[in-house]
Amino acid sequence: MGVLPDNVRFRADRRAVVILDQTQLPLRTVYLDLETREQMYDAIKQLKVRGAPAIGICAAFCYAVEAGRLIDEGMYGAAEGHRDRWRGVRPENQGSRGEPRNGEVSWGAAGFAARMQEFSAYLNSSRPTAVNLGWALRRMGAVVAGIPVTGPLDIKERLFAEALAIQQEDIAMCRSISEHGLGLLAPGAGILTHCNAGPLATSLYGTALGPILLGQERGMGFRVYADETRPLLQGARLTAYELSRAGVDVTLICDDMASMVMKNGWVDACLVGCDRIAANGDAANKIGSSGVAILAKHYGIPFYVLGPSSTIDGGCATGEGIEIELRDPEEIRSKFYARPMAPALVKCYNPAFDVIDHELITAIVTEDGVHRPPYRFG
Amino acid sequence: MGVLPDNVRFRADRRAVVILDQTQLPLRTVYLDLETREQMYDAIKQLKVRGAPAIGICAAFCYAVEAGRLIDEGMYGAAEGHRDRWRGVRPENQGSRGEPRNGEVSWGAAGFAARMQEFSAYLNSSRPTAVNLGWALRRMGAVVAGIPVTGPLDIKERLFAEALAIQQEDIAMCRSISEHGLGLLAPGAGILTHCNAGPLATSLYGTALGPILLGQERGMGFRVYADETRPLLQGARLTAYELSRAGVDVTLICDDMASMVMKNGWVDACLVGCDRIAANGDAANKIGSSGVAILAKHYGIPFYVLGPSSTIDGGCATGEGIEIELRDPEEIRSKFYARPMAPALVKCYNPAFDVIDHELITAIVTEDGVHRPPYRFG
Repeated sequence: MGVLPDNVRFRADRRAVVILDQTQLPLRTVYLDLETREQMYDAIKQLKVRGAPAIGICAAFCYAVEAGRLIDEGMYGAAEGHRDRWRGVRPENQGSRGEPRNGEVSWGAAGFAARMQEFSAYLNSSRPTAVNLGWALRRMGAVVAGIPVTGPLDIKERLFAEALAIQQEDIAMCRSISEHGLGLLAPGAGILTHCNAGPLATSLYGTALGPILLGQERGMGFRVYADETRPLLQGARLTAYELSRAGVDVTLICDDMASMVMKNGWVDACLVGCDRIAANGDAANKIGSSGVAILAKHYGIPFYVLGPSSTIDGGCATGEGIEIELRDPEEIRSKFYARPMAPALVKCYNPAFDVIDHELITAIVTEDGVHRPPYRFG
Repeated sequence: MGVLPDNVRFRADRRAVVILDQTQLPLRTVYLDLETREQMYDAIKQLKVRGAPAIGICAAFCYAVEAGRLIDEGMYGAAEGHRDRWRGVRPENQGSRGEPRNGEVSWGAAGFAARMQEFSAYLNSSRPTAVNLGWALRRMGAVVAGIPVTGPLDIKERLFAEALAIQQEDIAMCRSISEHGLGLLAPGAGILTHCNAGPLATSLYGTALGPILLGQERGMGFRVYADETRPLLQGARLTAYELSRAGVDVTLICDDMASMVMKNGWVDACLVGCDRIAANGDAANKIGSSGVAILAKHYGIPFYVLGPSSTIDGGCATGEGIEIELRDPEEIRSKFYARPMAPALVKCYNPAFDVIDHELITAIVTEDGVHRPPYRFG
């Protein structure tokens, strides 16, 4: 693939997780070393790492680094028996027999597991509603729980391997989505995209941006139009950044310019990600996606939804069942601006997502392949 | 009507034009007194007054104030003959016989006309492409040119009356458009509008906002959804402000939320202004208008275009003939923001207008009435 993820990785000494600080994009490309649990917590809470898959990967990496630090400091001694029970106690805190003083406790397998469980709960509280965060931490915790008390002391290697496996699985899934999506695009195609579902939010390639980035590696010469995506501007801040950095021919437009770009004949396909897909193919995605789909239909342009099969919710019959989060009016009135741009007391309606009617969707692309209507999921 | 225009008016002593400074909206409602020609020039150049009709009205008011000042200072003496030829010279600049010293010259009818012509050229240069600016100044100049040299000295009153007539004619036109538009709306209707075509840009009522404001006076209880209208945010800054101030139930949304608001069943009609209408009914208006029209058609919502008949260009067969202004990419990347929101080198496409296909327009409303398809103008 030539490129490795740089949004979440281990530092060479494996004593820190290095992340690309997404809050400083697109002005500055800044990498942060997360060494302490407080730095890890803040990075997730303050959205320095964002995107459901990326948050899960980051949490797993943090778990491995924290566990590695404890093990390096000798806080996992049970496997070697009771003679080592106090090896986790720092010298300055040892009594004459090596026993702990000053409240510092020693760790065996159970103590280590308890300590990591406490760490997981702490890190998970940074964004309690992020499903992937809890999922990744539970998966790491299962590795610890699965180590026999009398087993070998390779737990550190197993945890680093598990974190990398989570990332590799996401890469493989994104790559598979990208390959399937790329099959729908002709060389030199014009592509319009809304919001951001790229490498920063995942591992590599991303979902909606995956076919574009894979196509770029293969010299497909796509021209991309990126909706800025109000109110949070993920298209301007992230999509334009990711595609520019990859050398893709990208043009940023305001959301209300999509109709004209399509009318100009510049768009051959629309690609968007998705947050949830109902059994009938109705797809929830970033607010504005349904409008793009309607414009595409009007102009006779195919409209594709891309995402992992885990976003298909077979228990949800139609898009009617998808609840839409309403967000802070200040995101419309004042966020990002040097001064507020609307009267202070004016009402705002700020839904985070909308639902694309399945009749507007030409195909839904998952890692399993290209799904065409009529959609029958679950 | 109960309300008088407050965007452009004369100060009680008629020695200043008072304008509502649109550049400080919506945070502050600030009125500026334009007394000197430099203040008048700057107000137009810096868009403190904007909107084609409002600029024309403001220029006419400035012309009257400047002429009144010259006349009050005695710089128009020709009508009373040569004995008064020096009455325009200030005492401190008079010689023993009252003749001018220090380069100050005296004025007769011809001198006054020349001086006002020079003023018109100066003011017109503040925004050379604003058609209404030159038109209003020429109309005021025609009043001066029409005064017989030996005629009465009521020229000052005639000029103030002409300026007010220009404003009253615009009020009458906007009111007529508003009445015709109001006839298309049921009490309690939900209305979506894009950009701003309200009183600030005209005289009173405006065009697209006219039916809403007239309906508000009559207790029609409309609910209005205002697109913020990127990149220049006229909807957030001006429409939300004007409608809030008039007590209208207005909700601000981002442009990419219009589809969801329509899908929610909240919109019974869309109203937009227009910059130019072709003979076949294709209408150019603020970028994004064509997208709103396509959404409205998809959801079965009537879409109305409102404007003065002067925007109909019978010489232009279809919208294909309307040239679209492309504007500065920084309006998308950085304008209004505390810091740039897109990579510095990313390309932007920033058309100021788009063309609404006549097939998407339910009716075109001018001061002459409601025009239904098929449209045959000019």
